[in-house]
Amino acid sequence: MKFNLWFTEYHNENISLSMRVKEVLYLEKSKYQEIAIIETYDFGRVLILDNTFQTTERDEFIYHELISHIPLFTHPNPKDVLVIGGGDGGTVREVVKHKKVERVDFVELDEKVIEACRKYLPNLSCEMDNEKVNIIIADGIKYVAETDKKYDVIIVDCPDPVGPAKGLFEKEFYKNVYKCLKDDGLMVQQSESPLYDLKLIENICKYLKESGFKIIMPYSYPMPSYPSGFWSFTLASKKYNPLDVDENKIREALKEIKTKYYDEEVHKAIFLSTPKYLKELVRNITKSL
Amino acid sequence: MKFNLWFTEYHNENISLSMRVKEVLYLEKSKYQEIAIIETYDFGRVLILDNTFQTTERDEFIYHELISHIPLFTHPNPKDVLVIGGGDGGTVREVVKHKKVERVDFVELDEKVIEACRKYLPNLSCEMDNEKVNIIIADGIKYVAETDKKYDVIIVDCPDPVGPAKGLFEKEFYKNVYKCLKDDGLMVQQSESPLYDLKLIENICKYLKESGFKIIMPYSYPMPSYPSGFWSFTLASKKYNPLDVDENKIREALKEIKTKYYDEEVHKAIFLSTPKYLKELVRNITKSL
Repeated sequence: MKFNLWFTEYHNENISLSMRVKEVLYLEKSKYQEIAIIETYDFGRVLILDNTFQTTERDEFIYHELISHIPLFTHPNPKDVLVIGGGDGGTVREVVKHKKVERVDFVELDEKVIEACRKYLPNLSCEMDNEKVNIIIADGIKYVAETDKKYDVIIVDCPDPVGPAKGLFEKEFYKNVYKCLKDDGLMVQQSESPLYDLKLIENICKYLKESGFKIIMPYSYPMPSYPSGFWSFTLASKKYNPLDVDENKIREALKEIKTKYYDEEVHKAIFLSTPKYLKELVRNITKSL
Repeated sequence: MKFNLWFTEYHNENISLSMRVKEVLYLEKSKYQEIAIIETYDFGRVLILDNTFQTTERDEFIYHELISHIPLFTHPNPKDVLVIGGGDGGTVREVVKHKKVERVDFVELDEKVIEACRKYLPNLSCEMDNEKVNIIIADGIKYVAETDKKYDVIIVDCPDPVGPAKGLFEKEFYKNVYKCLKDDGLMVQQSESPLYDLKLIENICKYLKESGFKIIMPYSYPMPSYPSGFWSFTLASKKYNPLDVDENKIREALKEIKTKYYDEEVHKAIFLSTPKYLKELVRNITKSL
């Protein structure tokens, strides 16, 4: 008989997802949030921040492949990459798979998240010591406001827009991201559920447009451990359009990059298969999809 | 304060999804199953069979548009359509939107499901009285074994492979579906979660191949109220490939068919954006993707 220990995330006051728990591996309060890592029966190890699922061993490949390879294969020469958030290390792990990437500045607010994931989620944090990776413990919002560095690609692997992460969804932040990108740079941000958070996605796209980005394109995909199981990223670019990539070049590069979800067909099709209602909403703002 | 009434679906013994309930509208045992219709706060009205979510007012458009418009726009002239299962009526509602469709034989096992949905889910069951629709209360497995009719398109809107629906996932059934299709016919079947049910999808594809289908292609999409929020259909065709359609023709036809999820871009991209691991599994069996 399995012990009846469950963790429940209340997505809001009306809906919840529960996973049966084998063991609570880590539970600690940092300066910013309550951090938990649990071992579940169905989703392997799971990182939880303030009672919200962040990443699970079972489905993290979907999220981390799509937040990384879409922008890095859209940019023809992504040498300098900035990753904001994602203390579990999954995004950085995918980013360093790209030979063209020379340096990854990885800005994470909460050192304790990195520590916990280094210990309990080695499948995600395995590239934290990669020589390309420069870990910076700082607030990403302040970092982009203050740095003089210019990047080819900026990946915003942010949590939900509550508490300290709220500013990662405001106009000021996108203006600073624009400033921190080279003239042909591009960015991708985690942009919540296309079922629950349509107004937020609309605002993100508006702010990105007002910040100067020429091409703004959300893309959606299934994400089992997140609210509604239906999630999105939004790509904003100064020059390169993800639909213009050469699929043969991606196919060639993927011979040396192991992926489970992403391939050269997914690269373009994920934008085109995004639901009509979401494409229409964004087209009304940007005319770029 | 909201009354703390919840319905919980246990996807398996280790994971569950719960929705807060405003009211239980209908709860009755038929010959085949326990039927419930509840009013929820987040997903509107919800049909539940044997404690399993079947359809919700909030996300049913994803499922019903994709199970219907993909096959009906793949076939150039879908005059005669057979729908097996889907007593809520959502699939039939989408099918009759196609002008070319002249007749829909709609085979449902459980008359009580149709009755309940006619009363409590009018947004789904609204085309039950359409003159093109011929309701047949029968077991779909027996129906395809015994009928001499030939169809252009067969849509299998089946529940999970348990109880009386088990036979809808067996080789014998696919052989009979093949027999009931004209020489250029095609079928689509609900084929469970690409996260949880990979072995089942593999078997479906094997059986479809052994039944004689030339083109076998699964496609996946987010489905918030189903286990893992990540779901699939599998298309099997004697002649027409969904990737060969003329997008302009679909765009033109959609001027008179209102959709929220499906559009001419989604039609092809949904196959191409299906995860690499699923495409590879099927390619190993069929070589057709």
